[in-house]
Amino acid sequence: MSKQLTLYTARSCPYAQRVEIALAEVGANFTRFEVDLQNKPVWYAPQVNPASKVPAAAYGGPEVPPDQPSPESVKIAESLVLLEFVADLHPESPLLPKDPVQRAKARFFIDAISKIPSSWHAFMSRGESPDALIGSLESIQNLLSEGKEFAVGDEFTTADAAIAPFLARIATTLGNDIGVFAEGEGKKVYEAIWKSPKFVKLQKYYENVTARESFQKTWNEQLIKDRMSARFASKRAT
Amino acid sequence: MSKQLTLYTARSCPYAQRVEIALAEVGANFTRFEVDLQNKPVWYAPQVNPASKVPAAAYGGPEVPPDQPSPESVKIAESLVLLEFVADLHPESPLLPKDPVQRAKARFFIDAISKIPSSWHAFMSRGESPDALIGSLESIQNLLSEGKEFAVGDEFTTADAAIAPFLARIATTLGNDIGVFAEGEGKKVYEAIWKSPKFVKLQKYYENVTARESFQKTWNEQLIKDRMSARFASKRAT
Repeated sequence: MSKQLTLYTARSCPYAQRVEIALAEVGANFTRFEVDLQNKPVWYAPQVNPASKVPAAAYGGPEVPPDQPSPESVKIAESLVLLEFVADLHPESPLLPKDPVQRAKARFFIDAISKIPSSWHAFMSRGESPDALIGSLESIQNLLSEGKEFAVGDEFTTADAAIAPFLARIATTLGNDIGVFAEGEGKKVYEAIWKSPKFVKLQKYYENVTARESFQKTWNEQLIKDRMSARFASKRAT
Repeated sequence: MSKQLTLYTARSCPYAQRVEIALAEVGANFTRFEVDLQNKPVWYAPQVNPASKVPAAAYGGPEVPPDQPSPESVKIAESLVLLEFVADLHPESPLLPKDPVQRAKARFFIDAISKIPSSWHAFMSRGESPDALIGSLESIQNLLSEGKEFAVGDEFTTADAAIAPFLARIATTLGNDIGVFAEGEGKKVYEAIWKSPKFVKLQKYYENVTARESFQKTWNEQLIKDRMSARFASKRAT
C-alpha cells in the first residue's frame, strides 16, 4: 500500500474494531484517529463521513494531520465496505481467501452476523427476551466447521474480524451483568452461552478469535466494561 | 468457469433478478431453475437453501437435473453474496472494478440500497408515508456522479445489478398505482420521482440501467404488474 490511509475510529465501537483488526492482520501502515463519539469534532461529518459514524477512512491525497483531512483523499465509510477494502489493498494476505467458494462462505457468515447486534440490544437495552440473541448465536455456531480454527477454515478472514468485536462485547456485558434486565439475568444468559455444552463449538471459536494478536491489540475490556456499566447504571429493572 | 452452476431463482423476485443480471453480464453458462414461491418443492429447503428463499446456487459437483440437487455441490445463498461470487468467478469481467477504491464505492452504493426495500414496502404494503421511500431514493441519487452512465462510473457493476430490480419494481407498482394506499396516491409518488426535475439524475440513471441487455433479458414487467396487482387488489384503503 503506497497511498496514505487514515482510519477514523473509536475504541468503544465494535464496527470500528472490525477494521482495526483487519488492518492489524495485514500489517498495514496507517494513521489512527480516535473520534470522541460523545463530542465529535465539528469537521468530522462534513469532511470525513456525512453519516457522522465511525469507522471511516481517508485514503490517498497529501500527507495531512488527521484532524485536517484533505479534500483530495477518498473517504470510505461502513465497516463491511472497509473490511473488503483492506483485503483488496492486500491481495497477498489470507484476510479474504483466494477461492471464490471460500470467499462466498466468508461473506455468507458476515451476512448471518447481521442479526446479532439487534438481538443483543433487544435484551441488554430494552430488557426483551434473550431468546433472539441465543438463537442468533446458535445460527452462527451452526455455520462453524468442526475442527476448524476460524469461521471458514484455518485462516483468519474478514468473517472473523466482523464477528469478534461483537462476541467480545456480548460476553463482557453479559458476564458482568450489564443491561436493563433484572439483576442476575445477564449472568444467567452468559452461563447459558459461554458455559453450556450446547455452545461448546462457539466457545472454542470464541477462544480462537479473541486469542488472536490482531484482536488483543485492538480490544480494551476494561474500557468496554466501564463504558457499558456507566450507560446502564441507572436503567436497571428492579 | 469450468464447474457447473445451477441458479434457483424466481422471475418475480428482485433479489433473484440481481443474480440473473450479473450472470447475464458475465455471459455465464448456467442452469436456471424457476422456483414456484407459492408452492416451493419439498426438496428445496433441505437440499438447497435452509432459509427456503431464492436466489440460491448449487456450484460444482456432478451434472444433475436441478430438481435433484447433488449433496456434492456447494450451495450458496443471499443475493449480495452471489453477486460477489459471480464477479469472483469472472475476474476478467468489469462487473466488479479492479481498483480497490472503485470496488469500495460499488459496495458502499449497495449498502445504501439496503434501505430501499423497507421504505418501499412501508408505503406500498402498509400505507405509511412515502417520505422514507422518496428520501432513500434521494440518497441514492446523491451517490450518482454527473455524466457517468452507471452507479460508480461508465462500467456496469454489481452496484447496478443490485439496484435495478428494485427501481424497476418501484416504478412499475407506483406507476400502476399498485398498493394499499388510497387510489391515485401511488401515481402521485411516481410523478414526484419519475417526472420531477428534482430527480432528473436518478431518472437518467434509471434509463441507463433498465436499457441494459442484462436487465431486459431478466425482466418481465407484465408479470410483475399482474402479480403485484393481484396481491394488493383486495387491500386498497378506501
